[in-house]
Amino acid sequence: MALSECSTSTASRFFPMSLRRDAAVLAPRLSLPHRSCASKVPSFRTLAVRASTPLLVASEACAKVIHGKYVSKLIRDEISAEVSGMKEAIGVAPGLAVIIVGDRKDFATYVPNKKKACESVGINSFEVHLPADSKEEEVLKFITGFNDDPLVHGILVQLPLPSHMNEQSILNAVSIEKDVDAFHPLNIGRLAMRGREPLFVPCTPKGCIELLHRYGIGIKGKRAVVIGRGNIVGMPAALLLQREDATISIVHSRTQNPEEITREADIIIAAVGQPNMVRGSWIKPGAVIIDVGINPVEDSKSSRGYKLVGDVCYEEACKVASATTPVPGGVGPMTIAMLLCNTLTSAKRTHNFQCVGCFRLYFTIRKTSSEIVQEDSLSTRTAFTCRCPYSLNCLFS
Amino acid sequence: MALSECSTSTASRFFPMSLRRDAAVLAPRLSLPHRSCASKVPSFRTLAVRASTPLLVASEACAKVIHGKYVSKLIRDEISAEVSGMKEAIGVAPGLAVIIVGDRKDFATYVPNKKKACESVGINSFEVHLPADSKEEEVLKFITGFNDDPLVHGILVQLPLPSHMNEQSILNAVSIEKDVDAFHPLNIGRLAMRGREPLFVPCTPKGCIELLHRYGIGIKGKRAVVIGRGNIVGMPAALLLQREDATISIVHSRTQNPEEITREADIIIAAVGQPNMVRGSWIKPGAVIIDVGINPVEDSKSSRGYKLVGDVCYEEACKVASATTPVPGGVGPMTIAMLLCNTLTSAKRTHNFQCVGCFRLYFTIRKTSSEIVQEDSLSTRTAFTCRCPYSLNCLFS
Repeated sequence: MALSECSTSTASRFFPMSLRRDAAVLAPRLSLPHRSCASKVPSFRTLAVRASTPLLVASEACAKVIHGKYVSKLIRDEISAEVSGMKEAIGVAPGLAVIIVGDRKDFATYVPNKKKACESVGINSFEVHLPADSKEEEVLKFITGFNDDPLVHGILVQLPLPSHMNEQSILNAVSIEKDVDAFHPLNIGRLAMRGREPLFVPCTPKGCIELLHRYGIGIKGKRAVVIGRGNIVGMPAALLLQREDATISIVHSRTQNPEEITREADIIIAAVGQPNMVRGSWIKPGAVIIDVGINPVEDSKSSRGYKLVGDVCYEEACKVASATTPVPGGVGPMTIAMLLCNTLTSAKRTHNFQCVGCFRLYFTIRKTSSEIVQEDSLSTRTAFTCRCPYSLNCLFS
Repeated sequence: MALSECSTSTASRFFPMSLRRDAAVLAPRLSLPHRSCASKVPSFRTLAVRASTPLLVASEACAKVIHGKYVSKLIRDEISAEVSGMKEAIGVAPGLAVIIVGDRKDFATYVPNKKKACESVGINSFEVHLPADSKEEEVLKFITGFNDDPLVHGILVQLPLPSHMNEQSILNAVSIEKDVDAFHPLNIGRLAMRGREPLFVPCTPKGCIELLHRYGIGIKGKRAVVIGRGNIVGMPAALLLQREDATISIVHSRTQNPEEITREADIIIAAVGQPNMVRGSWIKPGAVIIDVGINPVEDSKSSRGYKLVGDVCYEEACKVASATTPVPGGVGPMTIAMLLCNTLTSAKRTHNFQCVGCFRLYFTIRKTSSEIVQEDSLSTRTAFTCRCPYSLNCLFS
């Protein structure tokens, strides 16, 4: 467990919104929660800034909190409504299959959480639990079975696999049509290329961008720094930010002056797995921070003996940034919401089902030309992103 | 034709190497050409800086010239030697098929050039020339034929295709095993992902990185700015630089302060198609510039009425940068050399042929762990990059 610590005070985290000088620019875009210093029970209020306003400088040395936990709840409610609509309309529910090999301690938390999340939105979950000494062929046999099963729309192989297994060949065996984790190179390639659309977007980086969207934080033309270049978060997050017309820089272990580069960013996505690595001095005043890190650090005050912190020193960030995610309760809950979203997307694509009610409200077509296509032409299955507040940013192709 | 002009003087381009104060740090890494102001006939001399030395400041206001034309000649000689070795050893020559649809003026230059280049190194070339009003099915029929032809190891569809054809579905029809242009999303995805290796690397960005390697210009830990984010050059160039541990930033049409960001770069790759867009004021003293732009601008002094210039104002760059490619004679000739390289790579992979003599000299294994694998284990076809001066950086997988 890491020992890194940046501050003992957490008071600034709950600094009251009502004292903020920039409250005047708040717009009623979405109803999102804000923690008050007077209470730890979140109260809902209008929080999002107008997409067209410049990023805000935190004049009162207290950043807005980007509440992933509550946004993910909103999203799960939306998924639930879509799943119900799908069941009613075509009698089909999305299905997610999870393959677990071995008995790692952390599986005991992650796997039931995924199962519960599926149940809560009406997605069917299928689970295969194999012993740690299983042969690779056995895992592949189950993957093939799920690939062919029409009730399964998403397949997830819980990582890490036991060391005697070839992770790459096992993941490659998952049909790209059901690769809801979106780690297939074909998906990543399409994500990188202009004019192409991936079948799925990796869950955690998709959750990061979704948080920015839901809080109305403009990305286009902004300077964005991604800290970390891993396949699961950093690299796809950078590709997603670039698709949204941010100017990206990627900081990694070989970067010689990470602090200086990070300080140039309007938007920081930190996904490096180093507790409190990003200090207040790394942050440009007014920057927005999405902290993907979930690192346990010793904490004698906690009954568990540890607490979870992010890659960004939260207390210091709050004094400089205009908005930041907390850890826990920030990006973490978004990942599982995006997994459910990808499973729903897959089921809708398989059954050519579209939530017409949502599209009528609000949508943006995602094409190279940024052309807005009339609703009638949606039946041509043009690649698009649904941006309605009642649905998700589901990428179709 | 563009009218942009940044200087009428080209004298600095041919500034004599012997007057450079930094000549003391030159190391005998490779014998590469340098143009002297006394003669337009290139003379070969030791030019490359030590890979371990920091990038140089151009103390005499005259950048080194990175001679793509001559490096590409060296590479073609190396390919020629490898092709001869392959023919002798297994009786097989690599084959490249080119499909042309229509009669665009520029095809009359490009296509014969490719054919000549193939012939010059012993690669068999196959050509299909279809009329502009051909049906898509006819093109697909020829692609299928070449996909199945064991004499063909690389297939190139000359772009642009006539407007009535679906470029994406035609390019997707090329077998990924023969996609020497390397534009398949699966290749791009593997290029983006750590621990994965693409079957091929797109020719122009591969040529850019090869120039840096051949001139011994260190990339690891350097700040690199790529101007342009297109699928053909900018995006894959950024991915390649990141694979080499550069810290990348990508500047594009939506970037708000391109000059400021570009000025942070130790290495600039400009691939935007805007004549002389990058001025001297955009360049950090001592930066290295790879200019991919080839833009015609009016020139009354030329018998053709125009001249070709890059995306970077060459005369101004020469006063600030430590090294730069000229236009023409820089990146352009490297693209076709890399196409030949990819075709050779494909043939070697198909026939499991390895140039053992080269590997004995010098090689680097490219794995996630950066582990150096013993020569004996090469027969396991581990993904690796050959870095020997007698061969190419061929990516196997």
